[in-house]
Amino acid sequence: MTAAPQVSGDDRGFTLGDGLFETVLWDAGELKLWDAHMERLNSSCDKLGLPLPPLGACRRAALAIVKAQMLGAERAAVRLTWSAGPGGRGLDRPDAPSPQLTATAAVSVKWVGPARLATVSVRRNDTSPASRLKSLSYLDNVLARQEARSAGADEALMLNTRGELACAGVANLFWIEKGVLYTPAIACGVLNGIMRGALIERAGRAGADIREVAATPEALSRASAVFLTNSLIGVRPVASIDGRLVGHDPFVQILQALLDDVS
Amino acid sequence: MTAAPQVSGDDRGFTLGDGLFETVLWDAGELKLWDAHMERLNSSCDKLGLPLPPLGACRRAALAIVKAQMLGAERAAVRLTWSAGPGGRGLDRPDAPSPQLTATAAVSVKWVGPARLATVSVRRNDTSPASRLKSLSYLDNVLARQEARSAGADEALMLNTRGELACAGVANLFWIEKGVLYTPAIACGVLNGIMRGALIERAGRAGADIREVAATPEALSRASAVFLTNSLIGVRPVASIDGRLVGHDPFVQILQALLDDVS
Repeated sequence: MTAAPQVSGDDRGFTLGDGLFETVLWDAGELKLWDAHMERLNSSCDKLGLPLPPLGACRRAALAIVKAQMLGAERAAVRLTWSAGPGGRGLDRPDAPSPQLTATAAVSVKWVGPARLATVSVRRNDTSPASRLKSLSYLDNVLARQEARSAGADEALMLNTRGELACAGVANLFWIEKGVLYTPAIACGVLNGIMRGALIERAGRAGADIREVAATPEALSRASAVFLTNSLIGVRPVASIDGRLVGHDPFVQILQALLDDVS
Repeated sequence: MTAAPQVSGDDRGFTLGDGLFETVLWDAGELKLWDAHMERLNSSCDKLGLPLPPLGACRRAALAIVKAQMLGAERAAVRLTWSAGPGGRGLDRPDAPSPQLTATAAVSVKWVGPARLATVSVRRNDTSPASRLKSLSYLDNVLARQEARSAGADEALMLNTRGELACAGVANLFWIEKGVLYTPAIACGVLNGIMRGALIERAGRAGADIREVAATPEALSRASAVFLTNSLIGVRPVASIDGRLVGHDPFVQILQALLDDVS
């Protein structure tokens, strides 16, 4: 491992959490779902009012960091951070922001085991556009995870400010009821996850009935299975929620198989 | 100006907004309300589960940055950032976090003029402990300010998730009605502002009737005056809210005078 890159102490990414990131799986020599990650980064920049990142430079930075740091590893999590850049003092960005690109990488294991969820008190702030972006202001999720760990779980189940299901600390949420696949709608304060999108697209093409909904937590108690998705874990089954065991559904394995080449 | 200090690109302050800061007014050779700032930083570390900062080193860093960068300036905003330090990947902190202290300074003007507020759609997430801390995850406030600027105002009026009055983008909110001073309670998702605390203490000692309340925005339309406080501006009158002019009350000038030695 080489040393981490340095960033300026007056970068708004550091001072205010003003910026975005993408976490991309590198596996078998490939950056998985790369185009989808770059599309999301672009559209997130539009929503935040940040200049777009140079996509060629992003790809070169991602490949360079893998080459420099991941010697011998088969799978890596490559993180690209697009921070708002030097900002001086105060909330207002400079008239012409100069965002900064920072790349890091870490070894990523394929299988982390089923998740035990705990419903936490920290809610997803669906009133803020940031709730639908992979932003550098992630402290609510850090606190949600802390709360879940304190409850003896390993991941948080977050509701939004209206008490509807939103997501986990670092993953999107899905459940199955009577053969139908459900996931909270983006408007519920949910990140437009890359693996979430890939699953919806591929399962839809395979003929599955998929519904993006606003639902209360009671929906999970009626589910035959619950699982999480993100770019590094693919599909991760949920074993329990607040200590209550969650069932198995063979449908989950089929969905896992649908994503096998990208997770 | 010397170059900004460098921070590591894998500092959790940069990657996740995991950390805290204080903005201290330096004026007439003094760091104003220093003890109150350090007490808040300590108690905020407890709430976030971060090791406490070395207070002597904080003071030395603050004075050193003023000496190095503020030659000739009478007033400066000194920012001390206590970020969670190197974290590797993921939400969970290392077992023994090594927070990092970073100091910066900028010239600060005494008088910024009355504020024109716009009520924004981004709500203060009172369900999160972070809403009561001066944390590095400030993107909601950046977005709130953007929204206020787009509406032709210069500062945001933020409500909480229940629709109660909370605060401005970078200031606490006060109003006066029939000689009584009101401010949103901390539980409303409000930063425990240093100037807010100083005002409550000093005005209380001077015999004022001060109430920390949960109130709806309608309270402001009944107010004889509305104003903001923070450590750099002291008391800043509000001229208008959503285009509606706000009245004057001589009480505000008396409160300003009470804080004259620290703002």
